[in-house]
Amino acid sequence: MKFTVNQIAELIQGTVNGDGDQLISGFDKIEEGKKGNITFLANPKYEAYLYDTEASSVIISNQLILKKPVRAALIRVEDPYIAFTILLQKYQEFMSIKPTGIQQPCFVDESAKIGESAFIGRFSTIESQVQIGNNTQIYDRVSIGKNVKIGSNCAIYPGVVIYSDCIIGNNVVIHGNSVIGSDGFGHAPQADGTFKSIPQLGNVIIEDHVSIGSNTTIDRATMGSTIIRTGVKIDNLVQIAHNVEIGQHTAIAAQTGISGSTKVGENCLIAGQVGVAGHITIAPRTIVTGQSGVTKTVKVPGQTLGGTPASNNVDFLKRNALIRQLPEIFEKFNQINK
Amino acid sequence: MKFTVNQIAELIQGTVNGDGDQLISGFDKIEEGKKGNITFLANPKYEAYLYDTEASSVIISNQLILKKPVRAALIRVEDPYIAFTILLQKYQEFMSIKPTGIQQPCFVDESAKIGESAFIGRFSTIESQVQIGNNTQIYDRVSIGKNVKIGSNCAIYPGVVIYSDCIIGNNVVIHGNSVIGSDGFGHAPQADGTFKSIPQLGNVIIEDHVSIGSNTTIDRATMGSTIIRTGVKIDNLVQIAHNVEIGQHTAIAAQTGISGSTKVGENCLIAGQVGVAGHITIAPRTIVTGQSGVTKTVKVPGQTLGGTPASNNVDFLKRNALIRQLPEIFEKFNQINK
Amino acid sequence: MKFTVNQIAELIQGTVNGDGDQLISGFDKIEEGKKGNITFLANPKYEAYLYDTEASSVIISNQLILKKPVRAALIRVEDPYIAFTILLQKYQEFMSIKPTGIQQPCFVDESAKIGESAFIGRFSTIESQVQIGNNTQIYDRVSIGKNVKIGSNCAIYPGVVIYSDCIIGNNVVIHGNSVIGSDGFGHAPQADGTFKSIPQLGNVIIEDHVSIGSNTTIDRATMGSTIIRTGVKIDNLVQIAHNVEIGQHTAIAAQTGISGSTKVGENCLIAGQVGVAGHITIAPRTIVTGQSGVTKTVKVPGQTLGGTPASNNVDFLKRNALIRQLPEIFEKFNQINK
Repeated sequence: MKFTVNQIAELIQGTVNGDGDQLISGFDKIEEGKKGNITFLANPKYEAYLYDTEASSVIISNQLILKKPVRAALIRVEDPYIAFTILLQKYQEFMSIKPTGIQQPCFVDESAKIGESAFIGRFSTIESQVQIGNNTQIYDRVSIGKNVKIGSNCAIYPGVVIYSDCIIGNNVVIHGNSVIGSDGFGHAPQADGTFKSIPQLGNVIIEDHVSIGSNTTIDRATMGSTIIRTGVKIDNLVQIAHNVEIGQHTAIAAQTGISGSTKVGENCLIAGQVGVAGHITIAPRTIVTGQSGVTKTVKVPGQTLGGTPASNNVDFLKRNALIRQLPEIFEKFNQINK
Repeated sequence: MKFTVNQIAELIQGTVNGDGDQLISGFDKIEEGKKGNITFLANPKYEAYLYDTEASSVIISNQLILKKPVRAALIRVEDPYIAFTILLQKYQEFMSIKPTGIQQPCFVDESAKIGESAFIGRFSTIESQVQIGNNTQIYDRVSIGKNVKIGSNCAIYPGVVIYSDCIIGNNVVIHGNSVIGSDGFGHAPQADGTFKSIPQLGNVIIEDHVSIGSNTTIDRATMGSTIIRTGVKIDNLVQIAHNVEIGQHTAIAAQTGISGSTKVGENCLIAGQVGVAGHITIAPRTIVTGQSGVTKTVKVPGQTLGGTPASNNVDFLKRNALIRQLPEIFEKFNQINK
Repeated sequence: MKFTVNQIAELIQGTVNGDGDQLISGFDKIEEGKKGNITFLANPKYEAYLYDTEASSVIISNQLILKKPVRAALIRVEDPYIAFTILLQKYQEFMSIKPTGIQQPCFVDESAKIGESAFIGRFSTIESQVQIGNNTQIYDRVSIGKNVKIGSNCAIYPGVVIYSDCIIGNNVVIHGNSVIGSDGFGHAPQADGTFKSIPQLGNVIIEDHVSIGSNTTIDRATMGSTIIRTGVKIDNLVQIAHNVEIGQHTAIAAQTGISGSTKVGENCLIAGQVGVAGHITIAPRTIVTGQSGVTKTVKVPGQTLGGTPASNNVDFLKRNALIRQLPEIFEKFNQINK
């Protein structure tokens, strides 16, 4: 990006104080402002940085009364935070002119249907009966199995594997090397101590506006579907087992695992490294704190849970406080006991 | 799949009651039966679903006496669960007519030996001295390093990387984007605070009938071999460090990590997100519950372990129950103390 | 490798006792010595193995006085451990004659600059404005996004994805299927329960001598950079979130996750499956034991931490010991209470 301060001010409908002809080439937080970049001041706590920043331009509030001189060119707006967010979005739109067309070499089966303005990257494989919607980007080195359906405006990044029969909605993003629809972990123990693998014949359904991070795995159902509902956001290295259902607009942070056949409600927030047992149900709006282990069905919506086995987080924190007092209390107890 | 109810009945040696000419196109659980699909009733608890199901056909026991009329076409057999399992397997065999031959473009070094009816997918690389057995499928975008040996009837899914010198047995399945044989995490701390990386010269040996999930990592040994014994089942996102040995018919669930040089016995069941320390031995038939941390050698076979550091699971659960009583007990104690 | 015992002795400046013409083809630990291999005896505890080993040659100390006859050819040196390490390194150098040149088919944009003696493997994609240093190997099936800079003497293994604008230093190793620079997990909750994804416009900077395992994910910063400092060693399946900074010469074991905007100091040792909360700082030389959860800023350098929430590890272990005594103490307490 190379815009002048004046051009940026016009974009966000602000007023310039200072050198509006300077070129801006990047973004920074105000505490890390570097020459050539633009930043913003929204939180009054950070005002001190304004007077020292090396950033070439700072977006500030119309209301702010300067206490000292400022080196940077200022852009005054009604709400600096909103203005900065708009700027970032415009920048991203500008930068991400989406590729279209089919790069060679790649393989697209003749029975596959590819939408308008879609993109298929090099070294990708699109098997038979696949459907890909309009304006969807399949980047390089992606494997799309037989009979997979992918909607419009999706971005599937390099190295992603989508096994046969899975269904992906519109506006879905899947980051590098994630695997969608590999076999569920179904191995029935036999009397002789060996395992017999159970055929995994279902699929994965991912609804609209879902975002999935890198190196995440979502297994196909044994029968039926593993389902990720509309608006769900999943981070990196997350494991979603067979026949799980994740409710609308639930967010799941990195390295969390959801075991088989569990149903997570809508609008839940599940932190990182959480484990959720199989065949249980989590009520809507449940918050699970990091590293917790949820072992039983959660019926009451809107609770915050902590610990393993997970319980109400306030109780969990209280117990932790008591555990920290154990040495002292045990000593007293031993004295009394004598 | 498009079979009639009559054709299915013949396959599983059952008797049809109802419209045997209906076409069946999928499988369901009885509580989720959809039109056009077949399901089964094995557990009497679910009998109520039989009378309401929208499934087109249900496999039931010869012995079952109907309490109400049923819309679905019934197939009566001796054991509905076994009959349904047989049906799933036959279906899977029918569907999974394995690909054979070598797709282009791919790279197969001229010194590599490829077995009869094997398959090499597009954009895969087979380096020098590699041996691949009969009827093995190497799907698209797989990297097989120098001198790797893979047995017969294996399936290696897209994105898998197998580093040089690793040895894979027969009937092994490795799912998408798993990495076999990358360097063990061996970095010796030096006096000046830096690390010196220790050459990792060993390999990984995977014996017969092993199944490995997606995005799992199994590191090569520093010297000698990291060994996965016959029949082991490993889930997604599992970490097996250098020089580990996993005993026959042990199952390891998702996101578990086994640290370097540890030996896990045969027929163990290790749940998800478990951590096992390095340089220890786990006795055969040990069960480790989810998120536990095994920090010491386990000598007595057949125990169930829980918690971090892991101990007998019954003791662990008892202690958890006591911890939940801490607030109440501490209050009493404080009263006495006064 | 096929060297004689005499050739090896010359390499490590040792003296041979026994048959120096035997061919050596591999390395073993002394307790697992196999015919045709060489091993070493450094720790006196293992001396008993010397007299029984089937290894064809053993490196021992000049000082060692044999208590029984030994079958293996001996190579006597000043320090057997150092001699063996030198041998391993020479072997590795000998074996790893690095590939050079550009294999076909691959894609290298005409604006990319590829250093001398660099290697680009088949089915890899090098986008526009990329710079790759001298003697760097990009193995097969790697995706390098626009404007990425990679230094000299690096090895990037198959399946790795590096998103646009990331900067990689010299002597960096990245193992199979790791993902560098995918979007940070930034989704702002909206009043209606949905999320709005925040553009992730920063990058990842990886300095010199960093080693990264397989299937690890390092997210790009929202703004600015996620930074991995010189000499950091990261294992498999590790998650490094957006805007994190990892200090020089810190080691992070498998399946650990560092949450957004956290700064880890230099020379820390973070064991496996650790979780570190977001927006905190970890002092230099901190050791975090396996599965711990660090929830607050750690100010005092050089501590060892354990548990969740993590505290001084000695206190954590004491509390664990007390918890194990709870059943007994509660029983006494209940008696007193009566």
